Amino acid sequence: MKNNRGFASDNNASVHPEIMQAIIDCNTGHAVGYGDDEFTRRARTKIRDEFGQDIEAFFVFNGTGANVVGLRNMTQSFHSIICAESAHIQEDECGAPEFFTGCKLIPVEAENGKITVDAIAPHIRGIDFEHHSQPRIVSITQATEFGTLYTVDEIREISDFVHHKGLLLHMDGARIANAAVALGVPMRAITRDAGVDVLTFGGTKNGAMYGECILFFKPGLTESFKYYRKQSMQLASKMRYISVQFEALLTNDLWKRNAGHSNAMAQLLAKRAGQIPGIRISRPVQANGVFAIIPEKIIKQLQEKFFFYIWDETISEVRWMTSWDTTEEDIIQFTDLIANLLK
Amino acid sequence: MKNNRGFASDNNASVHPEIMQAIIDCNTGHAVGYGDDEFTRRARTKIRDEFGQDIEAFFVFNGTGANVVGLRNMTQSFHSIICAESAHIQEDECGAPEFFTGCKLIPVEAENGKITVDAIAPHIRGIDFEHHSQPRIVSITQATEFGTLYTVDEIREISDFVHHKGLLLHMDGARIANAAVALGVPMRAITRDAGVDVLTFGGTKNGAMYGECILFFKPGLTESFKYYRKQSMQLASKMRYISVQFEALLTNDLWKRNAGHSNAMAQLLAKRAGQIPGIRISRPVQANGVFAIIPEKIIKQLQEKFFFYIWDETISEVRWMTSWDTTEEDIIQFTDLIANLLK
Amino acid sequence: MKNNRGFASDNNASVHPEIMQAIIDCNTGHAVGYGDDEFTRRARTKIRDEFGQDIEAFFVFNGTGANVVGLRNMTQSFHSIICAESAHIQEDECGAPEFFTGCKLIPVEAENGKITVDAIAPHIRGIDFEHHSQPRIVSITQATEFGTLYTVDEIREISDFVHHKGLLLHMDGARIANAAVALGVPMRAITRDAGVDVLTFGGTKNGAMYGECILFFKPGLTESFKYYRKQSMQLASKMRYISVQFEALLTNDLWKRNAGHSNAMAQLLAKRAGQIPGIRISRPVQANGVFAIIPEKIIKQLQEKFFFYIWDETISEVRWMTSWDTTEEDIIQFTDLIANLLK
Amino acid sequence: MKNNRGFASDNNASVHPEIMQAIIDCNTGHAVGYGDDEFTRRARTKIRDEFGQDIEAFFVFNGTGANVVGLRNMTQSFHSIICAESAHIQEDECGAPEFFTGCKLIPVEAENGKITVDAIAPHIRGIDFEHHSQPRIVSITQATEFGTLYTVDEIREISDFVHHKGLLLHMDGARIANAAVALGVPMRAITRDAGVDVLTFGGTKNGAMYGECILFFKPGLTESFKYYRKQSMQLASKMRYISVQFEALLTNDLWKRNAGHSNAMAQLLAKRAGQIPGIRISRPVQANGVFAIIPEKIIKQLQEKFFFYIWDETISEVRWMTSWDTTEEDIIQFTDLIANLLK
Repeated sequence: MKNNRGFASDNNASVHPEIMQAIIDCNTGHAVGYGDDEFTRRARTKIRDEFGQDIEAFFVFNGTGANVVGLRNMTQSFHSIICAESAHIQEDECGAPEFFTGCKLIPVEAENGKITVDAIAPHIRGIDFEHHSQPRIVSITQATEFGTLYTVDEIREISDFVHHKGLLLHMDGARIANAAVALGVPMRAITRDAGVDVLTFGGTKNGAMYGECILFFKPGLTESFKYYRKQSMQLASKMRYISVQFEALLTNDLWKRNAGHSNAMAQLLAKRAGQIPGIRISRPVQANGVFAIIPEKIIKQLQEKFFFYIWDETISEVRWMTSWDTTEEDIIQFTDLIANLLK
Repeated sequence: MKNNRGFASDNNASVHPEIMQAIIDCNTGHAVGYGDDEFTRRARTKIRDEFGQDIEAFFVFNGTGANVVGLRNMTQSFHSIICAESAHIQEDECGAPEFFTGCKLIPVEAENGKITVDAIAPHIRGIDFEHHSQPRIVSITQATEFGTLYTVDEIREISDFVHHKGLLLHMDGARIANAAVALGVPMRAITRDAGVDVLTFGGTKNGAMYGECILFFKPGLTESFKYYRKQSMQLASKMRYISVQFEALLTNDLWKRNAGHSNAMAQLLAKRAGQIPGIRISRPVQANGVFAIIPEKIIKQLQEKFFFYIWDETISEVRWMTSWDTTEEDIIQFTDLIANLLK
Repeated sequence: MKNNRGFASDNNASVHPEIMQAIIDCNTGHAVGYGDDEFTRRARTKIRDEFGQDIEAFFVFNGTGANVVGLRNMTQSFHSIICAESAHIQEDECGAPEFFTGCKLIPVEAENGKITVDAIAPHIRGIDFEHHSQPRIVSITQATEFGTLYTVDEIREISDFVHHKGLLLHMDGARIANAAVALGVPMRAITRDAGVDVLTFGGTKNGAMYGECILFFKPGLTESFKYYRKQSMQLASKMRYISVQFEALLTNDLWKRNAGHSNAMAQLLAKRAGQIPGIRISRPVQANGVFAIIPEKIIKQLQEKFFFYIWDETISEVRWMTSWDTTEEDIIQFTDLIANLLK
Repeated sequence: MKNNRGFASDNNASVHPEIMQAIIDCNTGHAVGYGDDEFTRRARTKIRDEFGQDIEAFFVFNGTGANVVGLRNMTQSFHSIICAESAHIQEDECGAPEFFTGCKLIPVEAENGKITVDAIAPHIRGIDFEHHSQPRIVSITQATEFGTLYTVDEIREISDFVHHKGLLLHMDGARIANAAVALGVPMRAITRDAGVDVLTFGGTKNGAMYGECILFFKPGLTESFKYYRKQSMQLASKMRYISVQFEALLTNDLWKRNAGHSNAMAQLLAKRAGQIPGIRISRPVQANGVFAIIPEKIIKQLQEKFFFYIWDETISEVRWMTSWDTTEEDIIQFTDLIANLLK
């Protein structure tokens, strides 16, 4: 029988019971549509308690929507957006950022998904030259697509540079909770306090059902927000069902517990798998993703029991994602299977 | 205390318990993301049982998304889309259809929200003339924004005309269930069998939490669908939670029960309100919307107890929507209050 | 032999010799590309002498480009643009305004191409309501597509209303010269001084080869202009050849002579044709267009000698445009032919 | 006195007398607008004589327009376009390709502006994966932005690879004439016969006033062309004035004479400048561009006499473009000045 558990993605996991309960609890009576309701106000209060009282927070349906609508409020169509060549907005959104903002995306080299000032700097050029897309945004991902992390200092270095050049810093935080927990800091330490201007604050990959949040730290960017969200088809009518999920995530540190658990599972997986001869952990394991180079011959059999994706076929590198619901048992079974297959 | 029930919109209602239960039931273990899962396959089977085995069905987040992604798969940017001047795509989507398809929308007169061949015909012109946006789609809404219905014959007349002219027929069916129940026919009788090519099959306004479905009846329109859905930010990662809602709606006739109830409540409301001197029901009441012209002076007090929207301030016309969870008690209290205020 | 003269459009005419001479004269040596040249500066000076010292003027390739780039600098994608149902931007630009601005166009009834405050007013609604495209621009055409004119007072009435509502007034002046001459006023009297914010100042239909000019009367709209022009593919590299055409038009009143002549030819044509039994001039003849209802049976033979377009087949209405190079001889031959065919 | 000659760009040059004469000659009587005229038919015949009888050829206003409208006819918005990191469509069109096609541009490393199969290959991935922009076009530039050339074999290698992968090959031929002459082959040998599917055939940089041509070699790409051209604001009303320029370019080998001359001037310039101590020619000189690393201290004085652009400030590399009107005298004066300044 096919195992329905695996390491394919943290979005293959189910919804955390506390979040499900919050959804059930709010399911009574009427609520004004489109966000003008008590649940949404309560969620926003929780978010402000976490990130600061003067920020703006808006809910949308999904991660691509959060990134794109966030970027759209920061750009005009003749701008360019600099990001890692491996960024979700560059690789995994089917061109939605270009289509919806009209902007040019400029991918830069990024070892293990992290970009540096040195990689960004050469692309800050052609300023005021109408033939050239005008650099406007640098977008970084925390945790990165490789499960690696920017330190607070690294983010600060980038934000200082970006602001010095008159640009804005966007962060794709689909896994911001994993990052904060791994670094042992509050989420605001690696976002607002480190100079991030706009953040995609992800819920879905941390135990939610659907819904992401866009946080604007820099004032003055949201004047047209409500129109762009609606025009981009990201305004939920029964908003309360998104809002309560974020309220739940920010209640009793659920965001932290979920992220902490999935991070720990990644460490365990990396440790156990790394000890198996023939397996090489290929990237630093800092959040909830484990990358490994494994013998090609075992991939198919392994995937049949625990599904996961091949990252780079040319070097037989695979990606294993852990999630809030990954168990030690999962890890043990999985690594035992690897060991067995390699005997 | 503020009453949290009212007649503002069928999207202010909560989620039907059977749908909530389906969501709870599917919340176990992992499921492959983005729709390649058992739940989605099961939901698709249910939909095909209802609408025909050879159709294509895809889930998206919301109604605007369903309309726009559906239209995008039928159009190129130089096309035009003819619709009622009161259509949701014309009035209530903040220009998302134009922005995302690039097409021109051509609003035509529509008494009580219904357009006719006579209203459409003058706009089928400029064919092959590159200066003129090329007519490509006629879009109708069933039930309309005024709670009125097209009969099967009326839809057939439009679809015959539309196809004869080489165009396609789109239907915004945000309230298709209400329409089918009111007309006493299966949903396919007023969609596929009446010549509709693409349908937005609404769930949210009929008791679901979120999620709508796009049905393609005409073959050959979906080659690029998956890319357009993703690029338009309408692809849910944890798709199962949308799919099971549609499965539930199509199980034990839940869609019919919900729509039938809200329709009946609209009839009751229209009957009781219509008997109050000073209240005039201003549109035919055929689905779950009641429009009435009421004395301006009572609106504010009335809204405080039962919220609803003013439709046309210039004539003091209001809109009252009923939903699956509207009770006879709600109606009685509401109409009694009206009567009291008018004494 | 096929006559190569006719009344199809003022853009079928050749280039006026004085404009051609200006092109020839500037054809020596090098000039910096993209508008940073002496010729363009000189043309801009001429334009400012005509319209005011504090205006901004930019050249583009063609009329559709001028309209669209002008509108783009006044709008965000969630805005709407209200215009006559017969406006060029609505009927004849293949959806370029929607595609490039993302905005919704709202066509309103317009007798003989002229819109009124009464027709505009009902569409100024849904303000601050994110579901509704936000009204931002009213666009009028002077002279209209029917060859009719707005008086100074009529424009002022519209601009006062538009500004009072917080919107902006755009004018498509593809035939602004014809309008000014017919009204006996300077061009600025019916544009800037009457409250127009942005004008498409047409050259091509008044004897130029190619090139139109966008004039911004209202300050603060051009911050991003240069990027939008380039991104919209409307920035000419060898700009001098456009600039000198506008300089020539504004030298020795060439614009006035050309427009005056074509207007006079329209009057002559209307007078002579109107006297022929069976011919009915169907619109006021105020600029350089003559609309007439003529017997269908003569259209084909007439077109073979002097080409023109049928405007409304259903009532056998045709459009005859005169231009700077229309001769009295043309008119006499044409009207004699009509008379002969109707004998 | 400021010298009005220089080496800034081949678009700073004036219009060749034979082209100007063709414009003057066609300036008589009326011509049907928008391309349905004798002049345009004659030009198309000339183009077919050069490139093949079964091709489609369309005129637009400028090079960016030609690139973008060509690409738009080959793509849907979820596609990607692979090009050199130095390509005009990547660097110099202010994001027009992204804005108008909606596609993602993927810049690849390109020594001296030339891309290779090895550079392209890694980006042909994610096929059928809806999260990833689908690779559709490879675009190369001939002659490149560095004045270098692809040989026939190099183009053939790329086109074979591109077609084998199911993609299409686009060529930006703003300087295609320079390339053909330099390689000593007909233009069709390095375009159609080498596997190019769509070509921007440039006129402006080879002595024309304005106007470029899009050639479709692969059948089946132009069904929607006329609408896309109009919607993109690239349809000229008085088309004859563009058409006759191309007719002139293809008459008595004018295209070849102009390109041959400018190429020869580049060789002369490279030879003379290269002999001056302190000057290093930094790129192969194969068409009409010369790149050189020169002492920073002389740049300003040099530019005052003969204007040109700095290419890469960080290494003091400059770009000198020659054109059809560059004279030996220009070269001698310029190089003498360099030598003098370096004394």
